[in-house]
Amino acid sequence: MKLLLISNSTNPGEPYLSHPGQQIKDFLGARPVRALFIPYAMVTGSYDDYESRVETRFAEMGHHVTGIHRCDNAANAVEEAEAIVVGGGNTWALVHRVHADGLMEVIRKKVLRGTPYIGWSAGSNMACPTLRTTNDMPIVQPASFDTLNLIPFQINPHYTDVQPEGHGGETREQRILEFIKVNPDIRVVGLRESSMLLLDSGRLRLIGNPKARIFQEGADPKELSAEDDFSFLLQ
Amino acid sequence: MKLLLISNSTNPGEPYLSHPGQQIKDFLGARPVRALFIPYAMVTGSYDDYESRVETRFAEMGHHVTGIHRCDNAANAVEEAEAIVVGGGNTWALVHRVHADGLMEVIRKKVLRGTPYIGWSAGSNMACPTLRTTNDMPIVQPASFDTLNLIPFQINPHYTDVQPEGHGGETREQRILEFIKVNPDIRVVGLRESSMLLLDSGRLRLIGNPKARIFQEGADPKELSAEDDFSFLLQ
Repeated sequence: MKLLLISNSTNPGEPYLSHPGQQIKDFLGARPVRALFIPYAMVTGSYDDYESRVETRFAEMGHHVTGIHRCDNAANAVEEAEAIVVGGGNTWALVHRVHADGLMEVIRKKVLRGTPYIGWSAGSNMACPTLRTTNDMPIVQPASFDTLNLIPFQINPHYTDVQPEGHGGETREQRILEFIKVNPDIRVVGLRESSMLLLDSGRLRLIGNPKARIFQEGADPKELSAEDDFSFLLQ
Repeated sequence: MKLLLISNSTNPGEPYLSHPGQQIKDFLGARPVRALFIPYAMVTGSYDDYESRVETRFAEMGHHVTGIHRCDNAANAVEEAEAIVVGGGNTWALVHRVHADGLMEVIRKKVLRGTPYIGWSAGSNMACPTLRTTNDMPIVQPASFDTLNLIPFQINPHYTDVQPEGHGGETREQRILEFIKVNPDIRVVGLRESSMLLLDSGRLRLIGNPKARIFQEGADPKELSAEDDFSFLLQ
């Protein structure tokens, strides 16, 4: 299985999909790939615009995307995809639509058979067992919280240590500590911006400068860097 | 119907339940009240500790609370309550438990009959039609997203204008704009910290210095102050 799970599409002040650009290019390989793009996390803009924004960047890398929303038969499009790319936005909107169209199991099986999967933000969340570590507002109720279950742990994208000044709400760490209290059997990776997880040949590693913060019930949170082996998370 | 819906329990650096203390006291009236306290939003601490923290503050105001988790018959406890107080924490944990115990409709009917309801943070969210404007992590899947439906609009507690520096995730405003796009018939009140909504004698008003930000699909967001009449939100 080949997964590239990115925290965020874009660092503030940088062009769209700039920070993970080289990694996406390397991940897809030397031969030009036409990937199936799933834009359903987009809420306030159009799927066409989203597709075209992603296509612009992929074309620069020598690859291309086709939006699943333009395919007559979405399940067939998944079956025939050379790669699957799931963009960020609202995780609830994404998961709602993927369930509604009956695609969750179709995508899962396709990726388990070896088709490369790239996700960022909501797209990384959807690779997890459930969407229960999303930061997004639950603007729509999906048929289920269950998602692709490609990895046995949860990712929290856009993980941040910052608590805005004067803000009395929970910190991100507090929210994840609540998660592992209620779900003690599942580990959570707080994936800071500008970083990503790469799964290839059964090995999981972190790419990017920021460390990742690993949460497990009964243990202190742990900071691991790109030098560390993350494969223990697969067991 | 009498509702006091508070954004946040505590401003940073202030004692627990300090900023809304006088309002809670006034809302409950001169006669000492023993309120039923619902602590189910608490995840990482104990219900007993949560009850005792709230009791300390209520006792200073001349009132008292009893935790519903200690009542043999929770539905009876709601029926007999002089007031209902719902504390903050994780909205999903709260709504999950209230549904699981079959209390949503019991509380709703009781409050519609005139029993005063006080909520803060998750407790304010639960007074809305659904929990779909919560900021909390969906650590557990409730039987339904539907909540007390005591008011016909949504509250977003801890509303903030701040985007942490270097953070590429959505702003709070962007999240709510997504909500009204998908739910165009429902207005959202962004309730900033240190403020609250008071519904009494059919009139809705804002209490506190920060303005509230009103979101409605098809209109620009609007800033209203404690000088304005909020009752239009009830229609």
